Amino acid sequence: MIKKISNRNIIYLDNAASTPLNKDVINEMLPFIKNDYGNPSSVHEKGRKVKVAIQNSRKRVARLIGANSSEIFFTSGGTESNNLALKGFCEYLRETDEQRNQIIISTIEHDTILETSIFLKKYGFDIKFLDVDSHGIVEPSRFKNLLNEKTGLVSIMLANNEVGTIQPISELAKITHDFDKNIFFHTDAVQGAGKIPIDVRELDVDSLSISSHKIYGPKGVGALYIKKSRKIHPLIHGGGQESSIRSGTENVYGIVGFGKAAEISLKNLKKNFDYLKSSRDYLIKKILSNISGTSLNGSYESRLPNNVNITFLGVNGEELIVELDEHGIEASTGSACSTNKQKSSHVLKAMGLDYEEISGSIRFSLGIQNTKEELDKTVEILSVVIADLRDRSPFKIKYQ
Amino acid sequence: MIKKISNRNIIYLDNAASTPLNKDVINEMLPFIKNDYGNPSSVHEKGRKVKVAIQNSRKRVARLIGANSSEIFFTSGGTESNNLALKGFCEYLRETDEQRNQIIISTIEHDTILETSIFLKKYGFDIKFLDVDSHGIVEPSRFKNLLNEKTGLVSIMLANNEVGTIQPISELAKITHDFDKNIFFHTDAVQGAGKIPIDVRELDVDSLSISSHKIYGPKGVGALYIKKSRKIHPLIHGGGQESSIRSGTENVYGIVGFGKAAEISLKNLKKNFDYLKSSRDYLIKKILSNISGTSLNGSYESRLPNNVNITFLGVNGEELIVELDEHGIEASTGSACSTNKQKSSHVLKAMGLDYEEISGSIRFSLGIQNTKEELDKTVEILSVVIADLRDRSPFKIKYQ
Repeated sequence: MIKKISNRNIIYLDNAASTPLNKDVINEMLPFIKNDYGNPSSVHEKGRKVKVAIQNSRKRVARLIGANSSEIFFTSGGTESNNLALKGFCEYLRETDEQRNQIIISTIEHDTILETSIFLKKYGFDIKFLDVDSHGIVEPSRFKNLLNEKTGLVSIMLANNEVGTIQPISELAKITHDFDKNIFFHTDAVQGAGKIPIDVRELDVDSLSISSHKIYGPKGVGALYIKKSRKIHPLIHGGGQESSIRSGTENVYGIVGFGKAAEISLKNLKKNFDYLKSSRDYLIKKILSNISGTSLNGSYESRLPNNVNITFLGVNGEELIVELDEHGIEASTGSACSTNKQKSSHVLKAMGLDYEEISGSIRFSLGIQNTKEELDKTVEILSVVIADLRDRSPFKIKYQ
Repeated sequence: MIKKISNRNIIYLDNAASTPLNKDVINEMLPFIKNDYGNPSSVHEKGRKVKVAIQNSRKRVARLIGANSSEIFFTSGGTESNNLALKGFCEYLRETDEQRNQIIISTIEHDTILETSIFLKKYGFDIKFLDVDSHGIVEPSRFKNLLNEKTGLVSIMLANNEVGTIQPISELAKITHDFDKNIFFHTDAVQGAGKIPIDVRELDVDSLSISSHKIYGPKGVGALYIKKSRKIHPLIHGGGQESSIRSGTENVYGIVGFGKAAEISLKNLKKNFDYLKSSRDYLIKKILSNISGTSLNGSYESRLPNNVNITFLGVNGEELIVELDEHGIEASTGSACSTNKQKSSHVLKAMGLDYEEISGSIRFSLGIQNTKEELDKTVEILSVVIADLRDRSPFKIKYQ
């Protein structure tokens, strides 16, 4: 039996759920926590000082995705950004072109997009679901067939949170805007930002969501990019902050930390990509070659550099997560958010996995702080835990 | 001429806009910024640890207002809380009782309530405005006359942000629920919380908004109390956090800091109230007796212990704020939020002040960190600045 490791040696492989804050990010935030407590809307010096800091962060976040800073609107996080994009544009549509009541989303969107779309049905919107293939990728030709004169909004995520597949967003957006430039194309880039290069002009999207705490920044802050020529309505009304797109006193420390995290992410993008990708490939190869009855979920070619989603046949993923946790390895059955609802993965289901495969799948999401030694230790522990769980199973199937 | 004081000697009298963080609040937050970076929805140890911290904060915030912790829902701030209460309940009304399409709000509500109500007009809701008297207080008998079988929602603030008047909420809520217990009574307690005792049972309100950064806690976090028996719909959809009332990864450090700030506020409520009230009365008396052509706006008797809103006749308030700022005194013409819109005070207008009076009014909002010496210095500088501004005015009226 492998000795359970102490807290200090936790191997955190759940970086798609949240990431540790970068030290430079913390240092950038601290003066605003300790001293610069002004309200950015105040006209006096304390107010102006934090307002300048927010504008500086806006530039940094804009640069990460190739936007103008006037196109960046801070929110409380990726969830709010996605809600704002969809509800805000649909509200605009209702007032300007109510014949367009069709929303196209992929079947593997995050719950924020799924649930928001379902909410919009109450207001007369119709949802068309775009299927993915067995690798978790949407097919542009199939997408094209869904477009029609009633299409108002398309929302397809840049990279999936569970299996890490990267969608051909620039191709999809081009198809959309070639068909009709008035259709609004949103992409949820919460998992992609900071991990793969993003340029909103190249992607040709009308809006794009990002979150700070997925890129080594603080929780409670995110942003929505909105292309200059496009209009949406606010979701939260009040004092008119963020050019009246998002009212409420700004989360100053959060925004400042987010800006720094964006700057660091951009600076280290290539280096981090290479490091994560080699770590990812190392872990995938080692799991698949050391443990029988395993397979990788999602496209290998078009995949985030930090995502490792594996099916362990004959094992219950939730039990596996608990066992790994007891051995100091922190992973996830998929979306952290879905644990609130105790439901099984709609993403793996959409990819055609059967019940046993879905039940036995877990996600390791790597961070730049993870070492090769941690990955070795993970596979070592995994081998024992998987053997043990399979041994305790009433079915005792041998996997090869 | 009085020497301009350096940055280090800023006298911050804009505590209604935002407050400095309490040191104990910062210390409570730091471990979550530096080490405990888990996602509260993750089932592993790092996730569970922050989940426990959030639950602990929920209890602390609940205690501040006499609620059960299951009735507290964390949001990104007071603005979102107010939006959630009004839009969330109106969404519920639309589905359950669409005949009830009338909203009653006072004429001196914060922009979050005003703008949200105006937004709801688009969805068929009708707004009835409840006037205030010259002291900025609503009259219960006048309120009673506005209630009818179409009334669905009432929103009247506990204490006003500009003039600090405290409304008779328990009386108004009792009138409402005696008339019809199905009417939803919301109160915006963003300015009142932590300054005056609040007990949601005594107030008999159905929902109540609070904000962290007004009570020496961090920005970017607030809460909405929702009475257990009442139902509202979410404003932000997604992963189902906060019992599906408010999705999105929780702002962990913010929530932890807010909880500590709430705990400290409750513990020191009486002491802080007495200190602020004596400071307030000292400043009011000194300004009114030292500077001619001045008057106090808002009720003296039913007033927040930290609000000093004064009309300086013959002076432009915005110029006065700028001059005071140059001398190191930070105050406000009213709501910090309204500076985004460059509009004059709807609150003072509702109280019947004329154009000159509104234009010459500014707000000093005191904090527990302000000293008697700071107040003395403030009046000393004010006297000179006011004399100077009046002297530069083309009208050169003498005020007595």
